[in-house]
Amino acid sequence: MLFHKIEEVRTEVLKWKKEGLTVGLVPTMGALHAGHLSLIKKAKETCDKVVVSDFVNPIQFGPSEDFDKYPRTLDADMELCSKEGVDIVFAPSADEMYGEGRRLSNDTLTYVCPPFFYVNTLCGKTRTGHFDGVCTVVLKLFNIVQPDYAFFGQKDAQQVIIIKKMVKDLNVPIQIIQCPIVREESGLALSSRNKYLSEQGKKDALVLSKILNNIKSCYEKGITDVEALKETAYSFLTDKHDMEYLEIVDRNTLENKTKADENSIALIACRVENVRLIDNIYLK
Amino acid sequence: MLFHKIEEVRTEVLKWKKEGLTVGLVPTMGALHAGHLSLIKKAKETCDKVVVSDFVNPIQFGPSEDFDKYPRTLDADMELCSKEGVDIVFAPSADEMYGEGRRLSNDTLTYVCPPFFYVNTLCGKTRTGHFDGVCTVVLKLFNIVQPDYAFFGQKDAQQVIIIKKMVKDLNVPIQIIQCPIVREESGLALSSRNKYLSEQGKKDALVLSKILNNIKSCYEKGITDVEALKETAYSFLTDKHDMEYLEIVDRNTLENKTKADENSIALIACRVENVRLIDNIYLK
Repeated sequence: MLFHKIEEVRTEVLKWKKEGLTVGLVPTMGALHAGHLSLIKKAKETCDKVVVSDFVNPIQFGPSEDFDKYPRTLDADMELCSKEGVDIVFAPSADEMYGEGRRLSNDTLTYVCPPFFYVNTLCGKTRTGHFDGVCTVVLKLFNIVQPDYAFFGQKDAQQVIIIKKMVKDLNVPIQIIQCPIVREESGLALSSRNKYLSEQGKKDALVLSKILNNIKSCYEKGITDVEALKETAYSFLTDKHDMEYLEIVDRNTLENKTKADENSIALIACRVENVRLIDNIYLK
Repeated sequence: MLFHKIEEVRTEVLKWKKEGLTVGLVPTMGALHAGHLSLIKKAKETCDKVVVSDFVNPIQFGPSEDFDKYPRTLDADMELCSKEGVDIVFAPSADEMYGEGRRLSNDTLTYVCPPFFYVNTLCGKTRTGHFDGVCTVVLKLFNIVQPDYAFFGQKDAQQVIIIKKMVKDLNVPIQIIQCPIVREESGLALSSRNKYLSEQGKKDALVLSKILNNIKSCYEKGITDVEALKETAYSFLTDKHDMEYLEIVDRNTLENKTKADENSIALIACRVENVRLIDNIYLK
């Protein structure tokens, strides 16, 4: 079922709850690919009923970011969801989510603001307000759907860490299930933004996963000094790569470390053909 | 029943929900008085089961405010609640609510931040961060108890306006019930902070309600100019009164107006014996 209205979703989910069924939510911005598919499959395994939200959330894009050109493929998304047995696709308008005549700023809208220490690093450093927008829309979706479980991909590692922190801090009665990154055979992490890349760009983009895999194998060989591990990246980079960050931090708290350990995660953000790509890997 | 743990409350409420019972929450900071009592009575009328939370929330007090000396009267609160047939009193520790070794700042904690236009006025102007703290703890309590209804007093008018805005903006599936101000026969609005006042102080504090009542009767006589209405206050004030604000604004949006109308609310904050008191009145 495709729903555009909050009340429609609520009414349907309420029926399920009265029957004692468990509900899973997969929040997406649409442009579904095999990464989302793995979340949907996991949700189907875990829950009686599955809701996929399909909403390109304006308040998580900065003024110079790709909100307008972000891929929107609702028909294809619907087909994929129906094939997977998704019970509801919730595709609201921005008006439905934020009200008409909205001015989407913290002058007029209540925001959920994740902790500064979790935001002022990695993607949050260049994407000011991004995670406020993410947490706000995710909490809205949680309150609209009221699922028992919600599914997020490890691809957006900082996002899932911040959402888990939000759930803990605000006592949200929902269990967060984190699912592994899905990759092309080449190693490229799946992303809706890969659609922006040319064939050559996709080849150049392989450097992200190569750098991360190399860091992991260096760690396995006994190198733990974070600076040394990060330096191994340089040999992979060409003038096709505009690196934004490469960090090795704690996988739960995002704290910087000087020595990598079994709780470390390596994260990278790099522009290829001016497309901002991210990837990450657990060192253990 | 007195519960100190989040899990205890959740387990009990879940039982009720399985029986199809409706649940009301009355969030308080304890030191219960007849104002709270009116909220509890309304909750009992409205819902099958009633939870009163009794928690002096550290994150809504500024560093120079009265967190440490704020009255704590759990035994008396319990007695009153039990007499009124309250089903659960939830009195968590700060550790239970915010975690041990917590550092209660937005460096490390996810906050709910109401809109700047709602905060940067009235009480929010001098109590920096106060309403962030209020919204954060209220959303936590909502998520812990998951009530159908929550009850707030009009005494804290800005608070209830901000909470209604939060509920709307974040799609919180809870209905907010606002209850009228309860006053002593003298006209003094009930407040836990009245306990700080001497007998003389209580007399001096009557000026707040007198000013508001006078503004209302001036409005009823046809005066609508906000500045003119505000000026009527001066004749009541003595050197016992340290006025913080007197404003006439829209009762839903807190917007300033030059002309009062049927949607106007007059609000006052004034210190007497260095105790900060607030009061308000609908002009119609």
